Amino acid sequence: MINLDGGQWQTVYNILSFGLISMLATTVYTLVAQHRVLPKYRNALVLSSMVTFIAGYHYIRIFDSFKDATVEGSFNVTTDINASANAFNEGYRYVDWILTVPLLLVEVIAVLALAKEASKSLITRLVPASAAMIALGYPGEISLDNGTKVLWGVLSTLPFLYILYVLFVELGKSLDRQPEGVAATVGRLRMLLIATWGVYPISYMLPLLGSDINDPNTFMWRQVGYTTADVLAKCLFGLTIYKIARMKSLAEGMKVD
Amino acid sequence: MINLDGGQWQTVYNILSFGLISMLATTVYTLVAQHRVLPKYRNALVLSSMVTFIAGYHYIRIFDSFKDATVEGSFNVTTDINASANAFNEGYRYVDWILTVPLLLVEVIAVLALAKEASKSLITRLVPASAAMIALGYPGEISLDNGTKVLWGVLSTLPFLYILYVLFVELGKSLDRQPEGVAATVGRLRMLLIATWGVYPISYMLPLLGSDINDPNTFMWRQVGYTTADVLAKCLFGLTIYKIARMKSLAEGMKVD
Repeated sequence: MINLDGGQWQTVYNILSFGLISMLATTVYTLVAQHRVLPKYRNALVLSSMVTFIAGYHYIRIFDSFKDATVEGSFNVTTDINASANAFNEGYRYVDWILTVPLLLVEVIAVLALAKEASKSLITRLVPASAAMIALGYPGEISLDNGTKVLWGVLSTLPFLYILYVLFVELGKSLDRQPEGVAATVGRLRMLLIATWGVYPISYMLPLLGSDINDPNTFMWRQVGYTTADVLAKCLFGLTIYKIARMKSLAEGMKVD
Repeated sequence: MINLDGGQWQTVYNILSFGLISMLATTVYTLVAQHRVLPKYRNALVLSSMVTFIAGYHYIRIFDSFKDATVEGSFNVTTDINASANAFNEGYRYVDWILTVPLLLVEVIAVLALAKEASKSLITRLVPASAAMIALGYPGEISLDNGTKVLWGVLSTLPFLYILYVLFVELGKSLDRQPEGVAATVGRLRMLLIATWGVYPISYMLPLLGSDINDPNTFMWRQVGYTTADVLAKCLFGLTIYKIARMKSLAEGMKVD
């Protein structure tokens, strides 16, 4: 049980609602914007719509879970998922990530429209690595024991480092052949990914750093941090994918409408 | 706690419901009307759909919040957000505005289809200014202290004045190059924006003017005023954007269907 005050409760409530509608609005926008890029880039855009659609769904669940976990007539939120079915369920975040994180990486590869073999090779390595990264983080997230947390945290970091290697070393080689401006935008996309993904391990490590995650302020900032990172890593990321697809379409002779 | 009578309660309930369906209906209309304008104007129309979609979502939340805040079997509405999680939550309005107000300004620039550099320059100034205007208003809105209210109100007015300068002085220069009738319609659009935005600071200042915002009548008129302003600033605004896009499409040789 976390005893939030009114301001903290409202902040969590409003930031979750903000995440929810940002995801859904971006979904509609990227679906409708498809005709503005060449057909070969539309798959990247649809994948982006799927990412924000899946995330929007999970934000509806997280939002409702937060309301259900609030004890009637107070700002106290039940968080012990082993004690009550109404407890605030952060498991949704992991279900969301295991679906959306591999899709996000496929989006990047799809929008670059590399040779078929190169795409396939990158995807068959990035997808399992990213799924492993999320799956290995989960046991540490739900454990209350610091030793267990460290163990799974380290295991989860290994595929993360491998993803960085693939994105920066392997993918870097093929960026030279992209039209002007595209390489720079992909570079910024890669930095956006690293910067936003950095929020998750920081949040994961809070209990290890001696921070009490049942402290109302820590709880509030964790929700603000997760949601902001999700909106940047999915909505801003998807809109950047759209921008790259549009730049490449125009560079390849699509008529400016 | 505000003790509304039956008529006041019904008025608030009905006006919120009216706002909700106006937003959703305009969303569908502007999405479906896209093929009636040239491709280059469709982005402006999609942005308008996003604005009304986001606002429609928030009206669903505001409407539900009003019902949840009503004490069972009475017309009494709980409004102290620091006392109860079920209190009527006006925070939604700020979450809505911080997303929709920048988008509304981008809509205006998008429908004018200016040269790329000119568009970019206007957008990079209008978007941060409008986000700052909303963000700076929020601490004053939730404060119960008049001095704090005045301080944040003044700070919020500075970016507002800057937006007026950009829209009337800078944007004015590029209106000469628009087809006949378009400049006049953009002028009316600009006036609509100022007239409807005027409702928000008036509502903000009510407590400063000695008005008791817990007075049932004041509460009712505040909801009527906000909702009417939102419908004009988003639905009528979006339909005017469509009208401009249609006029420009016809002027540029699109076949009358």
